[in-house]
Order: sequence, then C-alpha cells, then structure tokens
Amino acid sequence: MDSKVQDPLNEKPPGHNSWLSLGSAAYDFRGDVRTSPTAAMLEAVTYASLLDDLDRSDPSTKKLEAYLASLTGHEAGLWVVSGTMGNIVSLRSLLVQPPYSILCDERAHCLNNEAGGAFAFTGAVPQPVHPANDKYITLEDILPHIKLGHGEKVHACPTRVISLENTLRGMVMPLEETRRICDFAHANGIRVHLDGARLWEAVASGEGSLIEYCALFDTITMCFSKGLGAPAGAIVVGSEGAVRRARWIRQSIGGSIRQPGLLAEAAYVAVRDTFEGNQLIRTHHIAAKIAQHWVSCGGKLKYPTETNMIWLDFEQQPFGLDDLIKVGRERGIFIHRDRLVIHYQISDEAVQILLGVITRLTKHDADILDIAVS
Amino acid sequence: MDSKVQDPLNEKPPGHNSWLSLGSAAYDFRGDVRTSPTAAMLEAVTYASLLDDLDRSDPSTKKLEAYLASLTGHEAGLWVVSGTMGNIVSLRSLLVQPPYSILCDERAHCLNNEAGGAFAFTGAVPQPVHPANDKYITLEDILPHIKLGHGEKVHACPTRVISLENTLRGMVMPLEETRRICDFAHANGIRVHLDGARLWEAVASGEGSLIEYCALFDTITMCFSKGLGAPAGAIVVGSEGAVRRARWIRQSIGGSIRQPGLLAEAAYVAVRDTFEGNQLIRTHHIAAKIAQHWVSCGGKLKYPTETNMIWLDFEQQPFGLDDLIKVGRERGIFIHRDRLVIHYQISDEAVQILLGVITRLTKHDADILDIAVS
Amino acid sequence: MDSKVQDPLNEKPPGHNSWLSLGSAAYDFRGDVRTSPTAAMLEAVTYASLLDDLDRSDPSTKKLEAYLASLTGHEAGLWVVSGTMGNIVSLRSLLVQPPYSILCDERAHCLNNEAGGAFAFTGAVPQPVHPANDKYITLEDILPHIKLGHGEKVHACPTRVISLENTLRGMVMPLEETRRICDFAHANGIRVHLDGARLWEAVASGEGSLIEYCALFDTITMCFSKGLGAPAGAIVVGSEGAVRRARWIRQSIGGSIRQPGLLAEAAYVAVRDTFEGNQLIRTHHIAAKIAQHWVSCGGKLKYPTETNMIWLDFEQQPFGLDDLIKVGRERGIFIHRDRLVIHYQISDEAVQILLGVITRLTKHDADILDIAVS
Amino acid sequence: MDSKVQDPLNEKPPGHNSWLSLGSAAYDFRGDVRTSPTAAMLEAVTYASLLDDLDRSDPSTKKLEAYLASLTGHEAGLWVVSGTMGNIVSLRSLLVQPPYSILCDERAHCLNNEAGGAFAFTGAVPQPVHPANDKYITLEDILPHIKLGHGEKVHACPTRVISLENTLRGMVMPLEETRRICDFAHANGIRVHLDGARLWEAVASGEGSLIEYCALFDTITMCFSKGLGAPAGAIVVGSEGAVRRARWIRQSIGGSIRQPGLLAEAAYVAVRDTFEGNQLIRTHHIAAKIAQHWVSCGGKLKYPTETNMIWLDFEQQPFGLDDLIKVGRERGIFIHRDRLVIHYQISDEAVQILLGVITRLTKHDADILDIAVS
Repeated sequence: MDSKVQDPLNEKPPGHNSWLSLGSAAYDFRGDVRTSPTAAMLEAVTYASLLDDLDRSDPSTKKLEAYLASLTGHEAGLWVVSGTMGNIVSLRSLLVQPPYSILCDERAHCLNNEAGGAFAFTGAVPQPVHPANDKYITLEDILPHIKLGHGEKVHACPTRVISLENTLRGMVMPLEETRRICDFAHANGIRVHLDGARLWEAVASGEGSLIEYCALFDTITMCFSKGLGAPAGAIVVGSEGAVRRARWIRQSIGGSIRQPGLLAEAAYVAVRDTFEGNQLIRTHHIAAKIAQHWVSCGGKLKYPTETNMIWLDFEQQPFGLDDLIKVGRERGIFIHRDRLVIHYQISDEAVQILLGVITRLTKHDADILDIAVS
Repeated sequence: MDSKVQDPLNEKPPGHNSWLSLGSAAYDFRGDVRTSPTAAMLEAVTYASLLDDLDRSDPSTKKLEAYLASLTGHEAGLWVVSGTMGNIVSLRSLLVQPPYSILCDERAHCLNNEAGGAFAFTGAVPQPVHPANDKYITLEDILPHIKLGHGEKVHACPTRVISLENTLRGMVMPLEETRRICDFAHANGIRVHLDGARLWEAVASGEGSLIEYCALFDTITMCFSKGLGAPAGAIVVGSEGAVRRARWIRQSIGGSIRQPGLLAEAAYVAVRDTFEGNQLIRTHHIAAKIAQHWVSCGGKLKYPTETNMIWLDFEQQPFGLDDLIKVGRERGIFIHRDRLVIHYQISDEAVQILLGVITRLTKHDADILDIAVS
Repeated sequence: MDSKVQDPLNEKPPGHNSWLSLGSAAYDFRGDVRTSPTAAMLEAVTYASLLDDLDRSDPSTKKLEAYLASLTGHEAGLWVVSGTMGNIVSLRSLLVQPPYSILCDERAHCLNNEAGGAFAFTGAVPQPVHPANDKYITLEDILPHIKLGHGEKVHACPTRVISLENTLRGMVMPLEETRRICDFAHANGIRVHLDGARLWEAVASGEGSLIEYCALFDTITMCFSKGLGAPAGAIVVGSEGAVRRARWIRQSIGGSIRQPGLLAEAAYVAVRDTFEGNQLIRTHHIAAKIAQHWVSCGGKLKYPTETNMIWLDFEQQPFGLDDLIKVGRERGIFIHRDRLVIHYQISDEAVQILLGVITRLTKHDADILDIAVS
Repeated sequence: MDSKVQDPLNEKPPGHNSWLSLGSAAYDFRGDVRTSPTAAMLEAVTYASLLDDLDRSDPSTKKLEAYLASLTGHEAGLWVVSGTMGNIVSLRSLLVQPPYSILCDERAHCLNNEAGGAFAFTGAVPQPVHPANDKYITLEDILPHIKLGHGEKVHACPTRVISLENTLRGMVMPLEETRRICDFAHANGIRVHLDGARLWEAVASGEGSLIEYCALFDTITMCFSKGLGAPAGAIVVGSEGAVRRARWIRQSIGGSIRQPGLLAEAAYVAVRDTFEGNQLIRTHHIAAKIAQHWVSCGGKLKYPTETNMIWLDFEQQPFGLDDLIKVGRERGIFIHRDRLVIHYQISDEAVQILLGVITRLTKHDADILDIAVS
C-alpha cells in the first residue's frame, strides 16, 4: 500500500493533492461509495462554470442535467445532492393527496436506510413486499398488497406509487419483470419510481439498456457517488412536469445550492469515464472471480453475485467474518461486513491480497491464524 | 468589463478556469450570492481530503465544523448544503411535539423565501410579528403573540421556538434587544434559533462579536455562499445534542453527502479570507457611500443602510428602476431590483459606474436618457 | 334563575333530564356554544336510525347530509364531529401537492384557535392578511400576499387555497366582496374554502342567502353546535369529488364514527328549528339592543354589532370587565370576557339583568359598587 | 325475523324508536360493530349532562373518563370519538422527535385499516413484524426489527414506540408474552401502546385482568362501539402527562366535541352492562360452539377461535363463501366474508339458523342447494 495513502480512519488533513492518487480506495471493499475523486475530476472542477443554479443560469449544471436526460431518454433532469434526496423529491413529486401508500421491496434502501426519508417527509405508508424468489419482487408478489383506491373503501390507504430498486443487494431486476410491474401500475393509475442508485450496474450486466429500463418509469434516481466515483450528487430524470415539481420540492428542503457547477462537472466525468467508459464491466468480472474463489474454498453465498457485490456466508467456513476483517486489515485491505463491494478503483493488488487471505484462512494457514488469534 | 467575463445569463460553458477571475461578480449588484469562488478556494479544493463524512471520517469537513464551533463558542457544528437546510434542521431539532408554533419576523427568510421550508417540514404554525420600528422586532412586539402552552388551553398552538434573523434586509438587530428576547424565551421554556445567514455582516458592523451574538441562541445557521463567496454550504452550530439531532434530520431529508471535503475547504477559505480577513468592512463603506450619493441626488431610502445593502426608493426621482437597470446594463453593471447588494468582489470600477449612472440619470443627462428611452 | 339550573362549573352529574330545560344556557353570554340541547332534539335522538355510517347505510346521517347539500346548493355533504374537523378535512381536500400556502384573515379561527389544525396537518404555510377596514379582508388586502405558483420561482410557497370566514368576530363579510375574492381566486387556479361555522348568522343578517354565499366556494363548513344549539357536529358541503376526498381524510384522522345517527338527528332539528325557524333574527335584535344600551351608557364598541356579538370597549367606562363579570355573576348571568354572545336560548330575563347591571355600573350605583368592591 | 327489524341496507328512516329493539343486530354476524344501542343507553342519554367538555366542565364525560382510568389502573382517561382516533392521539403523544419508527404486527389495524392513520399523521415509519406462530408476535419476532437509535447510525429510523393489538383477529395475546415485550421496550427507552379496541374480549377469555394488561403499557385505547354496543366512542388511558398531550392532539385534529355527555353516558352503560355484566363470556361460548360445529362438519379454521371470532376456511367444504352468504341471507342472517363475529346481541335464533345452514350446506341438502343455485 502506497505510503501516501490516507488511512480513512485517520482524521489528520492530507497536506497533499488527494485527487492525484486513489488513496485507500484501491484497497477498500467496504462499499462503492469508497471510490476517490480523480485527477480528471479535479480538472473538470477547475474548468467548471461557477454561476447560479437557483435562477437556472449555471451552464455546467444544465449540461449535466441535459446529458442525463438524454442518456435515459427522459425530458428533463434535476441534479440533487444525494441519492436519498433524489428518492425523496421524486416520490413527493409523484404523490398527490393523502391517504397514500408507496409499495416497495421490504429490503428497499428508501425504506430501511434513509432515516425515514420519503415516508417521514410525505406521510406515505410503506407497503413492504417480500420477494418470493429471494432476489427481486415480481408482479405476483406485489398483487396481494395493492390497494386500488376507488374512494369507497375509506379504511384503505391506497397504493399510489410503486418504488422499485435496481440493483438491490447487487442483484439485477430483470427488464421483463420490471416491464410487467410498470405496465400493471400504469394500467391502474399507479405511478412508478426507480431507485436506480446502482442502475448503472444493472445496465453493465447486460440485462437491458439505460433507455430500456428508464422508459418504464415516471421518475428515476441515479447516483454519481457510488460506483461511478464522483464526490457527491445524484440525478432525477422524468417528464418536464415531474422535474419541475421535484425542483420546487428540492428547494423546500434546502437541497438547492447556489453554485453546483463544480460538483456537476465532477459527476459528468464520472458518468463519461466510468459508465460510458465501460469501467463497470471489469468490476463485475472481479466480483465473479472472488465469488468463484470463495465458493471453491468451500464458502457459500447469501445472494448470487450478478454485478459488483459478493455476499459471504460463513456458515460452513472454518473461520468467521471477524477473522477476515482482521487479517485483511493486516494485509492492507478494508472489509467491514459480510458484503464485499467491488468498484472500478479496486486495484488488482487488492484483489490478489483478498484472494490470498481467503485461501489461507480456509486452509487454516498457521501464520494467518496466529495473527488472527493474537 | 473584461472580455473574458462570463455573461451570467449566457449558458455556454466557460472553456477556461473561472476560479482565476471574478468574472461578472465584480460588476454584479444583484446579490451577495453573486460572488465567484476564487483561486484560493480552488487551491483549497485541490488539497481537500476526499473521505467519507457519513461515517464522520473526513478531516476537511470535521476541521470546518470544529473551526465554526470555535469561532461561535458552541460545542459542535454541522456542515449543511444551504442556509435553508440549516434553518430546517435547526428548527426541527429544537421542536419536540406538536402542536407548536415558531415565532418570527413577518419578513423572515425562513417564512417567505424557503418554499415552505421548516414550516412545511415540521407542521409548525408560524407566528409572524410586525416590527413596530420597521427595522427589527423587539420584545414588546413579540409579547402579544406569545402563547405559553401550559396544556390547558387546547385551542392554542403554543410558541415553542423563536427564530430571529440578523441581518434582515441588511439591517442589524442590536445585541441588547437580541439578549432581551432570548432571555425572555429561555426564562419561559422557549428555544431560540438564529438565521444568521448574514450574521457576518452584523458582526462586521461592529454591533457585537460572533461569540456575543451566538451565546444567546440554542442553534445558529450561517451561510458561506452569500457575502463570504464560497460556492455553497452553510453551518449549523449548537450543543452536542442539538447538532446530533440536526445531523440525523439532515440525513432524513437527503442532505448528507459522501465527500463534502472539497466544499468544506472552499468554505474554510471563505470564512478565513473574507470574514476574518475583514473584507466585509470595505463593503459596508462602499454601501454607505452609494447610499449617501443616492440621497444627495435627491433619492430616498426604504431602509437605512447599516451593512451591505442599499434599498432605493424612486418615488421622488425623475427616473425609475427600469431606467437604472437598463442604463446600468449598458454600462456593464447588473442590477435587477430596488435593492443593491455590495459584496467584497464588487470592483471599484463598478462602484464608479454605478455612481455615475445615478448622477447622470438624476440630471436628466441627455445621452443617458436617449439611451434609456431608445 | 331556576333552581333546577345546573351550574356549568359544578361537576356533579345532573340526576334529571337536562334536555327538558335550558339550564344555565338561558343566562349564559359566554358563547353561542353554551346553548343546551332541547327536548325536540331528544325526541329526534329517540327516533334516530342507529345504523352504520362507515358503509354509508345510516339513514339519519344520509338525510342530514342530503338536507344540507340541498340547503346550500352543493352536490354532497359530509357530517363531521366538529367545525375544526370540517376545516381540516376541507382544506386537506382542496390542497394537492406542497409547497402550498393557505391565505386567510389574520384573525381566522382556523389559524388562531384550532391548535395548529389544518396547517399542522397539511404542512401548508398560512398567509395571514390584515383587514385594512378592521372588519373583513378585501380583494385589495389580499392581492399583495398572493403568490401565483408558476413553478419557476422556487423560493415561493404558492397560494393554493384562500380560506375565508363568515361571520368573523360577529361581523358579516359582504356578499359582493366575497364574490370578488372568489372570482379572482377561481380565475387564477386558487381554490376557496369558507369557514362558515357562523354563516347562519350572516344569512340571518339579510346580507345574502345560503345559496348565494355557498355558490362561491369549493367547500364550506358550517357548525351545528354554535348558534343552532345541537350538542355537536358540523357539515362539510362541496362537490361529490371534494366530499369523497374529505370522507377519506376524515377516516384517516379517526373522525368517522359508527353510528352518528343520533347526533345527526339532533343537528337536523337544530337547523330546522333554529335557522329555518328564524330564531337567529331575534338574537340579532337582542344584540343590537344591548350594543345600543352600552353606547348610550357611554361605552364604546371594539367592533360593530352586525349579528349576535357585542364587543365591549371599557376604555371610557368608570368600571372594568372584572366588575361586569362579578356583578353579572351575582345577578345570575355568565360573562367571561369583553365579548358578549347572544344565542337563541338567552332568556329575556337574562337580557334585562344584563341591561340593568350595565346601567347601574355606569351610574356608580352604590349597592352595585359595594358588591363589586367587596 | 321481527317485521319491525330495519334492513341495514335500506336507507329509509326508521319512524320508530330503534333503541327499543335490537333490530337486525340480533341476526348480524358481520361484525361486533353491528350491535345496536339499547333502551338502557337511551335512558342514560336522556339523563346525561349536556355541558361543555372543551373547558372540562361536563360531568358525564368526566365520570366516564374517571371510570375507565379506575378500571384500568391508570391516572387519567380521554374520551375520543373512535378507536382510530384513540390510536392516533396515543401514538402521537408517545412519539417525540423524528426520525422515528413504530413497530407493530404486520396485520395490525393501525397499519392496515386506518387509512394511513397515525403513520400519515406523524410521519412515523412502520416496522411491520410477522408472527412466526401465526397467532401473535413474540419478543423473538420483534428483536431483529428493533433499531435502537443512539444517534450515530444516521441511516436508521429508530424504534421509538411498539404498538401491540389485543385481541387481533380474535386471538388473545398472552399476558406473559405481552409483559416480556413491554419489559424489553421500557428497558430500552421504547414506549408501548396497546390498541385494545377488543381488549375487553381478551380479559373475558380469562387470560388476564384489565389491570394486569393495562399496567404494562404507556397508553391504551379501548373501543365502546365494538363488542360493547355503544353507538360511538373510545377511551385513551395513560399517565396524566400522556393524556394531557393526547387531549391537545385531539383538539388539533378536530376531535374535541362540545357536548359529548350523551355519548359518554351511552358508553358508560355499555361498559357496565356488557363488560362488567359479563355478557362477553356468552359470546365466546357461542363462538366456540359454532367453530366446533364447523369443524365437525368437515370445515377448517384459518385461526383458532379464542374469543368471539370464527375464521372459516372453505378449502375442504363442498360449498363456498358465496353459498353461505346467500343461503344465510335467505334465512335472515347477515354474513359478508369468511369471518363470523359474535356479539352479545346475537340471538339464539340466529345461532340456530347459522348452525342449520352450515349443516345443510355440508350435507348438500337439496332444498338449500336449489336455492343456492337459483
């Protein structure tokens, strides 16, 4: 590990230009949010426009919004500071009058990892759905939960929005099933949102194009700061009307910023270089390789590895998660739970270290165990 | 006007490093949000840490938060993306259980310019107060509106928070009156928030120090992107408990971002160079000079010029706002309403142009009028 | 005062049929909510249907709703448990998506006397308007506050509903001014609600008919338990769509009850006997007589007496409110503030006592003063 | 069936005193809300106090509140118009600051049958829990869902309230399991509410006393209009502080009514005669008898019959729900779904009709089938 690498748990300021090296990101399997902004992004930041987005006069921001609208085939885009905010302003824009429910996968990020998020903000009641196949929810899973509000059954809190997520725990929601659900929804006056924080990964897996997926939804959120590597931000795309409403909602929660141009330009580079530059495909190959190795070493997987995540099941292993974390850390790689996430900045060296650690832990290698025990 | 200056209404991307020149900002009287990020800020951005703030491991962000807590004499600080968000998370943190009201000046930004903001988010009912002196609200103005909720008068929506604003329309709220109101509030179990987006200006006016003002409040929001010139962001300061609650609220509205370090460093430079570097005092001198000139030319002022704003009253002038805007624009300066705002990037040249335009419009100067009429 | 009259401040259970006498109501000037349910109402309660309103099968409730819809010229009616609930479900039904503001008189009941009410429930921001004439707000008062939300000015919280109140503090809002405001609103996509808790009084004053007033609004709430004398309840009228939404909202706040038939029948009697039976006109005559007497005794009025309220100004009187309360109480009448309210159950005896007390207090009558001082 | 019995689906007004006969209630298995108010209740209504509850001066209301507080061993009680409102004001009173979650059984009434209810009103996120035993949730079911909010894990929406329901689908939650959950909650700073709309039934089953159950909770709601037979209303009991907050919340949603005395007295009679008069025990015997008969006729039960509900499973029957509904209706009894509910007004005749219909449908009795087919 490079001596100039910052330890992510060390709070001292860097004192050098962190954009020039990937730093600890190259060794960090804790999440795809661990990517580090790059020199190309700093270059873009340097040449960003620095004008006002509140009166819509910042070229860099408008360029990014137009770029994403174009990539996804939607009318308009809205830059937001985070994926969580993207979900909140999208869902609020799709809801009209209470009482209303939002149906989603019981494991959805918007339900479990956004501190209340859109539900707290709108007063919508979630209708969590269990995926019978343990991978993604299907139309059949959804149907028993749907409440079509015709205004007579006043005890019900009708389903007004279905919010899907793709990928979810690294698994791809098939294009065909997505279409079935969205078609059902639209045929019944229900709007559909996609939490596509990692939709980039689903597309990189080859299951469907951005245009194909996005055509099915009223609004879509996609993150720049996860697998793509930008320092911050996300995009909401949809119709002119939906985005106009979302822009107003964004303002009402303080999410508008004066000069987002520098972040918009960094995001532009992230999409162009990482997604359009096909960097994600390599991460899927790495993930598959690690998953295979894990299985060949006798491990099990909690979920199939379809994109950039490996879910480790330690049940039949002679060692535990704590051993893996500890030994990994000693070898210079960062792991913190049973989920390994590959991002495009992970180095080949880090992958080799990881594979080696798994091998040696599996084999009860004496040296490793000594270290792990000590 | 420099030929490389970007026209703020022109949407073409810059194609050059905008951080190196002030661009149109040097000629822009439309608002102190029109400041342009500087070369020193870009330098700081370049050397920012790029780590994760969601697990509190980004040194640049923590440095900024600690710096502002120290400057204001509070326990803790929380970086937020905007002043509006600062107000929302602060007010939500101070409120407990409904029913509750927030008392504020009837002209308050949080009431009139934040698209519902904290009121919509919390369901708090505003209690707008008219300032009898037309400058700032006093304890005497406030008292008739206060509802002390003792739980028996169930028709009332009790005052749980008083939110003050300083400066407001460029006028300073005196330290002594602030103290009277805050003392009354605390003696009656009411919490107090300061929308100090421009508290920097009040301090620069000499009325009181940051420490003196901030000691009176439970939470304070201050903006980096107005008179200080940072591209974005604001700070909330308060007790450890209040800031911890605010951090959670920030997350629930999607206001946390992964790597705010680059914006935090730009803000650090803004506070250090502009506020601590005493740049604001010059802007007050310029504002006073323009106000004097306006009056000496027969104009009136809607409000006294106490900091960096000049409120023009055209009633007794032989020309109107439209003339001023038009002629100013022809001479290269930007004005859009009856309020002129001075910021530290306003050039001496721009001030001379403005003074000249006022003089000539007042004198019915033929050339000017021709232009204005044509 | 009848020996069987219950003292309203005495908590012992009655032990007799309170419906057969008016009890303290005949002597109670504290409010028109002080009316007592009558023998005719008990008869109606006895013959009420006792079926289920949640599945819309209770004839008594449906009869009342149809009756009020017919009286007001609207498509549908919804029985609610209180006027406050009527305002809440109406305003929630008229609002669509935030951000939104509700414009109302700064003295409006929905803003000041409903513990947050519709504002807290919906997150709407109130836009309180001061009536320049000190009686009722006019279109001219309203215009400067209106924010027409065209979706570009994202700082604004647009006016989506105007909520008027008639009567307000006993004063009638003229039909013509009401029409001007409602016409303006509808021409600009703004909906209008009427808090007509005491619209009965405005109609009884002769200013306009129920049909004329109600035709101007999208939704109207009217109370049964104020001047009309029913034990509880109010009605919301509007279009089928608005009422269907209101019914759902009512359920979502727990306002539906299983068997409202008995209360609906009592309300039916109240409307028929008191309003349609022209009982309110007598109360206006009594109020006018008391107001005249007060003025002839040297008193002033805070507001003109246009319906059933007399607002006493003690400034030029040789005695104060406390004296009036105390002496009145000794003579058997109930007063608790500077507002006297006449309802149809006020007895002639009570009026004579009141007039006499005013006369004697004015004249410094020795006996009275002794009592008042002692 | 008595010729004076009102058809509940017929909208004509009764024209006679419905309180004197049970009407269709004696034949109605559709729900325990189908009970009819009684002559004893009308007598109580006649002798009710008719004073103002908003200033807390109505003796009948206060008597009822004190009575229920005493029966449940809590400090105070609050009359509310419905069980849904009882849940809303209780849960709102127990919650403090968002973000917050309410954990409940996935089948809970407050989650599924209150049109959003407390979740929409408070913005709380539900944490629905599946009962592994298919009867009631246990501490073991709950634990994996609990999020103890210590303020560091800002992605979480912490569990602040656990809301239990007893009975739920007619099944009793054991006292011991209730105690385990409540003890865990209180030990971890989580408050507990009981939706005890039918707690009367759990107590009548002999599992625990009102005092024993209620001692475990911070707030409890119990309905008067279900098995007890009152026309409307419910009670919230809890500490003085919790009830004071609940009273304020009740006002803010328009749930206070001026003169609830008549409904309070009817509820008093309902509790005294039905619950304290041990009428519920007979309903449990009837339910058990019907369940046994169903099983002896080859039917299955979806849930065990522990109180007053029988859940019919038609899977192995030679006839379906539609047949049962249709033949029952022809014989004069009302059924509308797979759930039969016994209340104390069900007549022996109705039970005999039901048993007979089941017998004959099971046996493919020709006459019955002809009718059913025709």
